[in-house]
Amino acid sequence: MAHITAGVEYGLHCLLWLANSPEVPLSSRDLAEFQGISPSFLAKVFPKLEKAGIVSASEGIKGGYLLARQPGDITVLEVVDAIEGRKPLFDCQEIRGRCAVYRERPPSWATKGVCAIHAVMLRAEKAMRDSLANQTLADIAGVLDRKAPPEFSEDVRRWLADRANGRARGPAATEGM
Amino acid sequence: MAHITAGVEYGLHCLLWLANSPEVPLSSRDLAEFQGISPSFLAKVFPKLEKAGIVSASEGIKGGYLLARQPGDITVLEVVDAIEGRKPLFDCQEIRGRCAVYRERPPSWATKGVCAIHAVMLRAEKAMRDSLANQTLADIAGVLDRKAPPEFSEDVRRWLADRANGRARGPAATEGM
Repeated sequence: MAHITAGVEYGLHCLLWLANSPEVPLSSRDLAEFQGISPSFLAKVFPKLEKAGIVSASEGIKGGYLLARQPGDITVLEVVDAIEGRKPLFDCQEIRGRCAVYRERPPSWATKGVCAIHAVMLRAEKAMRDSLANQTLADIAGVLDRKAPPEFSEDVRRWLADRANGRARGPAATEGM
Repeated sequence: MAHITAGVEYGLHCLLWLANSPEVPLSSRDLAEFQGISPSFLAKVFPKLEKAGIVSASEGIKGGYLLARQPGDITVLEVVDAIEGRKPLFDCQEIRGRCAVYRERPPSWATKGVCAIHAVMLRAEKAMRDSLANQTLADIAGVLDRKAPPEFSEDVRRWLADRANGRARGPAATEGM
């Protein structure tokens, strides 16, 4: 499994659709169907985004999720940490203290500070995180806006609004978000 | 499991000991015992380092591994790639083509080039890899040399030489590397 998993991919795609719908809340179920992805998988991603203050939820028939902040104020790093937790790139086992010449009593210099190998990995992790922190949802949305034809955004809004209206009317209205 | 696993940690520690023993080949078994780590696990790491041209192996009673290049010519990135394979930080599922408004026929603009989310992840991966490529075994060895007292390196050489001599004499001599 890759370090940054499908949960982040799904979450980021959803957040971009929410950025495109700043006033109409979208349900996790509709977003899943809209993107052809697993509704049950996506339903586990949204509570993490809500807990991290990235989306806000409203309940009721027309309930769903909205971005809790402007797209330019939400970094990719925040989304990754919200969904993956703060998992390290490298999990140091501290084997430096086990060297046989210490006869099970490593001297203090040997285990002082961060292991030199771990330090290299922490620098690489910081470089990766800094790169993710430098990109916001607005940056990604800008790339997409330059690719898509003008009518696309309107097609999307219409599809999602039709679905939300169907929820408000239809028998599935009580199934929640 | 972390993206960069214990195999890399064990491999890098071993390579540092090999850097400290430029003329006497060290066996994977002795290096495992010296560091208090699993010999069978370590035995799977060394063939990968050999295949990548990072170590060279010699056979026979006094056989073992030597660095194939100078420590300053071996980057941490090479060691990571040799042991982990070239595994991606993020494995894009290309969900952008499944959007419901395309009705299963995504237009060419929608799937052209790298997905904007994938591009962000590739930049973060490049930042991480560049950082690992900027560090060599010699850099890490330099940090350790500044920490350890002068006699430590000699203690290590003596322990490993005694072990290699024991192998040459003892009944375990035919057990290989």
